Amino acid sequence: MPAGTDLARDLAAIVGDGHVRVDEGALAAYARDATPLFTARPQAVVLPASTEEVAAVLRYATARGIPVVPRGAGSNLCAGTVPLEGGIVLVLTRLDKLLEISPEELLARAQTGVTTAALADAAAAKRLLYAPDPGSRTVSTVGGNVATCAGGLRGLKYGVTRNYVLGLEAVLPTGEIIRTGGRLWKDVAGYDLTRLLTGSEGTLAVITEATVALLPAPQDTGTGVAYFDSLADASRAVAAVIAAGIVPATLEFLDRKCITAVEEYAGLGLRGDAGALLIFGDDGSPATVSGNLARIQEVCAQTGALEVTLAENVARADALLAARRCSLPALSRLGSLTILEDATVPRHRMAEMVDRIDEIADRYGLRIATFGHAGDGNLHPTCVLDPDDADGAGRAHEAFAEIFAAAIAFDGTITGEHGVGAAKLPYLTDRLGEDQMALLRRIKRAFDPAGILNPGKLGS
Amino acid sequence: MPAGTDLARDLAAIVGDGHVRVDEGALAAYARDATPLFTARPQAVVLPASTEEVAAVLRYATARGIPVVPRGAGSNLCAGTVPLEGGIVLVLTRLDKLLEISPEELLARAQTGVTTAALADAAAAKRLLYAPDPGSRTVSTVGGNVATCAGGLRGLKYGVTRNYVLGLEAVLPTGEIIRTGGRLWKDVAGYDLTRLLTGSEGTLAVITEATVALLPAPQDTGTGVAYFDSLADASRAVAAVIAAGIVPATLEFLDRKCITAVEEYAGLGLRGDAGALLIFGDDGSPATVSGNLARIQEVCAQTGALEVTLAENVARADALLAARRCSLPALSRLGSLTILEDATVPRHRMAEMVDRIDEIADRYGLRIATFGHAGDGNLHPTCVLDPDDADGAGRAHEAFAEIFAAAIAFDGTITGEHGVGAAKLPYLTDRLGEDQMALLRRIKRAFDPAGILNPGKLGS
Repeated sequence: MPAGTDLARDLAAIVGDGHVRVDEGALAAYARDATPLFTARPQAVVLPASTEEVAAVLRYATARGIPVVPRGAGSNLCAGTVPLEGGIVLVLTRLDKLLEISPEELLARAQTGVTTAALADAAAAKRLLYAPDPGSRTVSTVGGNVATCAGGLRGLKYGVTRNYVLGLEAVLPTGEIIRTGGRLWKDVAGYDLTRLLTGSEGTLAVITEATVALLPAPQDTGTGVAYFDSLADASRAVAAVIAAGIVPATLEFLDRKCITAVEEYAGLGLRGDAGALLIFGDDGSPATVSGNLARIQEVCAQTGALEVTLAENVARADALLAARRCSLPALSRLGSLTILEDATVPRHRMAEMVDRIDEIADRYGLRIATFGHAGDGNLHPTCVLDPDDADGAGRAHEAFAEIFAAAIAFDGTITGEHGVGAAKLPYLTDRLGEDQMALLRRIKRAFDPAGILNPGKLGS
Repeated sequence: MPAGTDLARDLAAIVGDGHVRVDEGALAAYARDATPLFTARPQAVVLPASTEEVAAVLRYATARGIPVVPRGAGSNLCAGTVPLEGGIVLVLTRLDKLLEISPEELLARAQTGVTTAALADAAAAKRLLYAPDPGSRTVSTVGGNVATCAGGLRGLKYGVTRNYVLGLEAVLPTGEIIRTGGRLWKDVAGYDLTRLLTGSEGTLAVITEATVALLPAPQDTGTGVAYFDSLADASRAVAAVIAAGIVPATLEFLDRKCITAVEEYAGLGLRGDAGALLIFGDDGSPATVSGNLARIQEVCAQTGALEVTLAENVARADALLAARRCSLPALSRLGSLTILEDATVPRHRMAEMVDRIDEIADRYGLRIATFGHAGDGNLHPTCVLDPDDADGAGRAHEAFAEIFAAAIAFDGTITGEHGVGAAKLPYLTDRLGEDQMALLRRIKRAFDPAGILNPGKLGS
């Protein structure tokens, strides 16, 4: 690898002087992402302004065997953008043009660095819906959302990012610019590289532009909350809702520990005596929304809810959704280090899984609260460590290894929506088996023969 | 390659005597699929009964460099299962167990040889919907539908096969059995091999089992028909329906030539004076269906429909859908050879594209009628050749090359749902470019180092 100053000079020749950083501040900032406990310093941070500049950086890096880690907002929770082997962090936030919103074709086209919220807001202004809504959407980028196949609160009814990506422009590590898919839902010309790149976590190619499907914005939305004695009761209510033929847009849960933390943090007026809380919501025509919400209310009452309330207005609905969205900050303030995880199980095994998590947490002397997407079985067990717990991080690591093994044993997975990155790679073989791991490595080589792109992550 | 009798003996040792065929009848039958003009004889036809037998056949073939073409019902229209280089046709119809329908998890699990209709019917019996509905569904298999990413009449609202595949069991050409994905919507553990195998047309692995998502069955459905002077008018109506915020389940069209052929064939009472016909349908709650259908009726009337009628009962709705479903047989009987194609364009360019098709057909002196999925822009231009047209097939070949080039020029694709197979491979580079073609070949090698699986198709 060239010495730091040579590297900076070579990269500046591609992107211009002002867009390469090798100062201590930058190298320290880009040594980490939103994942705690993972740090590795790059040699340089480069911010290209175009697809051609991305291609030139990649050709340069491949020729010299320099690692390149593509990065959007760095909001991922799996150490997916930590430059484990140093090299270049390729920051894509200058590719920030929202290129097109087409009500006629029900699609949007954006450069990789546009935030998901900016895309969704521009669509909403034309009465269109971009359905994926990860918690990070105000900061996270379209490219990052595609690279991680981001999920969100509407997954049950609307699916996840992969269900909306129609086409991509991407640059191979060897510098070729490819365009996969296009503007059509129906297109089977070639292997499905659009979906292969979606969720590939910056290990196969650098996504520079995405075309995504939009939907007509729903006319109406509604939200409600149900309190239960236990998560087992809440889980039975979820099953009963599905059995009633309703697949609502939102079906989120908080366990007892989360309810307490959120209420102390935000004072939203949540019941303190409940063992679990379900936030449910739907969208569509006013008749559909009111019909489905009334039916969910009825089903929750029949399955033993302590209380079920429909939000009487938008402000109250927002407060309920805020209860879910602020679970993480509410828990984080209780300790010095917060580890947010992402184990996922079939929805009918959710209560069983949370019991197992609680048992594991008790055994390791850890505080782990769980919230998440009840409709998807996508759990976010969140470990909060006390500042004076010297070996807490080590115990948490062991506890989560047990939690992931339990998720797999329940026909689930080690990550529903956060990604593998460096954080989950040690558990991936348990999920996929050795033969599939070897296949991932062969696919990685088909894209990246020099192994420069995000090394130490998927495909390594 | 071993001589015929040795090959038969070796294969019989794996699957049993009764399940290897090398007789003339079998070799002739499996030399073709539903695609006209493509024929190539295999050396043997083998019908394994289990995933393990599939793996043993593949290990045997890889060790000896013998081509293997996996095949379900052989109903594909792209010569995807014609054994271009001879070898073994691996018929998967004995893997025919419907393993599971879970109302709780909203999923089904089936061996590859189960027909799509059998799966859909079993789901319907539990008030669940398997949404993909390709025209071939009564004969085509789950494995074949996954391998081709089959579409159908409900694509606009419900998407295509890839939107429903949750997990696969598949056998690599080298014999390893892998399980991709699982039972969850949200699962980002590893590259998305589930979607990569979906649409890979039997060139990467042999799919032996699929887990697919189901939806609660809609409570109600409704259907209507609108007649227009021209396809341009019909296309404006489609745009207006979408602009009104409605994404109906069904939005099919027939051009003037199809209307005439269908009416002569089936006598359904279609108007003979119309230049285009739209069949529209929706499903959902009774209020949603009646509301959306009334709105579509209004929009069609406003955009100049000659006549708009809602089907007053199920029998009439079935007759309308039959008009669409019988377009192909109605056209086929007019000639000795029927070539059904699959060019796709953004929906607002549909009329322009059909005009171009008509112009090309006239120039080549061919009869090409077009029907298809107006909501998706998925056109099925269908060429019917007279028995006495000696060089008709050659002219049709040239005409379709122009049609595919036009589709690409309109931001469309050479195949929306039928697949590439041998029939479209010559046009694939025009769609994907040389760099992406080279990447497909590298991916193919990552799965199939000996190049035995369905050679001469995708990835070749």
